Amino acid sequence: MTSNLLSPDELEAAIREVGATRYHDKHPFHHLLHGGKLNKGQVQAWALNRYCYQAGVPRKDAALISRVEDRELRREWVHRIHDHDGHAGEEGGIERWLVLTDVLGLDRAYVMSMQGALPATRFAVEAYVRFVREMPLLDAVASSLTELFAPRIHKERIAGMLENYDFVGERAMQYFRRRLDQANRDSDFALDYVKRWARTPQEQQAAIAAVRFKCDVLWAQLDALHHAYVTPGLVPPGAFRPEGV
Amino acid sequence: MTSNLLSPDELEAAIREVGATRYHDKHPFHHLLHGGKLNKGQVQAWALNRYCYQAGVPRKDAALISRVEDRELRREWVHRIHDHDGHAGEEGGIERWLVLTDVLGLDRAYVMSMQGALPATRFAVEAYVRFVREMPLLDAVASSLTELFAPRIHKERIAGMLENYDFVGERAMQYFRRRLDQANRDSDFALDYVKRWARTPQEQQAAIAAVRFKCDVLWAQLDALHHAYVTPGLVPPGAFRPEGV
Repeated sequence: MTSNLLSPDELEAAIREVGATRYHDKHPFHHLLHGGKLNKGQVQAWALNRYCYQAGVPRKDAALISRVEDRELRREWVHRIHDHDGHAGEEGGIERWLVLTDVLGLDRAYVMSMQGALPATRFAVEAYVRFVREMPLLDAVASSLTELFAPRIHKERIAGMLENYDFVGERAMQYFRRRLDQANRDSDFALDYVKRWARTPQEQQAAIAAVRFKCDVLWAQLDALHHAYVTPGLVPPGAFRPEGV
Repeated sequence: MTSNLLSPDELEAAIREVGATRYHDKHPFHHLLHGGKLNKGQVQAWALNRYCYQAGVPRKDAALISRVEDRELRREWVHRIHDHDGHAGEEGGIERWLVLTDVLGLDRAYVMSMQGALPATRFAVEAYVRFVREMPLLDAVASSLTELFAPRIHKERIAGMLENYDFVGERAMQYFRRRLDQANRDSDFALDYVKRWARTPQEQQAAIAAVRFKCDVLWAQLDALHHAYVTPGLVPPGAFRPEGV
């Protein structure tokens, strides 16, 4: 396939088109989650699997920084590690995620051990870390651009979960409220970077493919949840089984 | 958890117990496949996804060899690469797999591109390659031990598929017939190696965990197939869609 050189705005449009067709807000599991159609055990399964993703993100950001010669880019990127891991006076996104799993009645040590997570979740998360560690730097930056599509799903989630689940309260939603601001700032920077540095058709197509790859990483996690906990409800050996299942 | 030192035979029994509970012959997708309950499109989906696994195996074997100082172990292991990639006068397992996908009416270039494979398949395969590349060598060797459980599933598959599908003939089954001999030889060697070199409780438990991990890799591939092509039949964006689906 040959491709023409796109203008920066055409490249942005092509990236946004990936989100419009492949971002995981289209996945039926999210419709169930936000629409109040899941029971508590299913929401627990989602939260403890998604913990693996949260826990993997600072490692992938560190892998990216480890490859960057440009100090300015490193200085810009490092706050993502703080955002997730926290620092003095700020507990960070992973801690906020654990507040959510606390509220859902899950044992922290069990969640953090990842023992109950679906193998497919862990494989998808590690595929993301590996991509960022091994692929060209431009692709690694571009793979973060699903953040462009995140604020809407976070808003939907906050409203839908607060309205529909009596076992979820405002305290459990702090992770998502905080991400509303963080994701915008991060994706603005990364989008500018990709638009500026993807200067050949090959680089542009690789950047678009990186966003597609990242959508696959997110989608595959929901596929695994849906398969294990919704239909056909086939929990793999050793994975979390909600009480009464 | 503390564990006692097992005798070599107890270690073998513990490894075989992992197979008895977690090997993918227990997965409902295999029951459907071998029982003639799938349509041709579903068998195509299985074959083209499983191609990714076949294609990944020589890379994981090369990754293992790349870490071995012991020339004897390298000399023993290298034939696995030949078994899959072939050499003069012997086309190899990947080529035999492509004969199967030919017989099923799939385009070779499409199969080999892996474009239609489920992302979850590729993530699971890469998790296996990464495990062998990064974990202790003993664990890497142990992760091959699912071959202990393979001959029975190959026999079941040959008989079941020949009996139940008129679109599958003897020619398509050559891959499995050949693996019946190869897998026995390989697993005998690897089992002896693990029984001999796993000398602490920690090493023994890690070897057992490696077999469990490998079972997860295989199981997750069938979960993804089942979810996309059986129930609920939710094919991820961009993945293979059988005609008429």
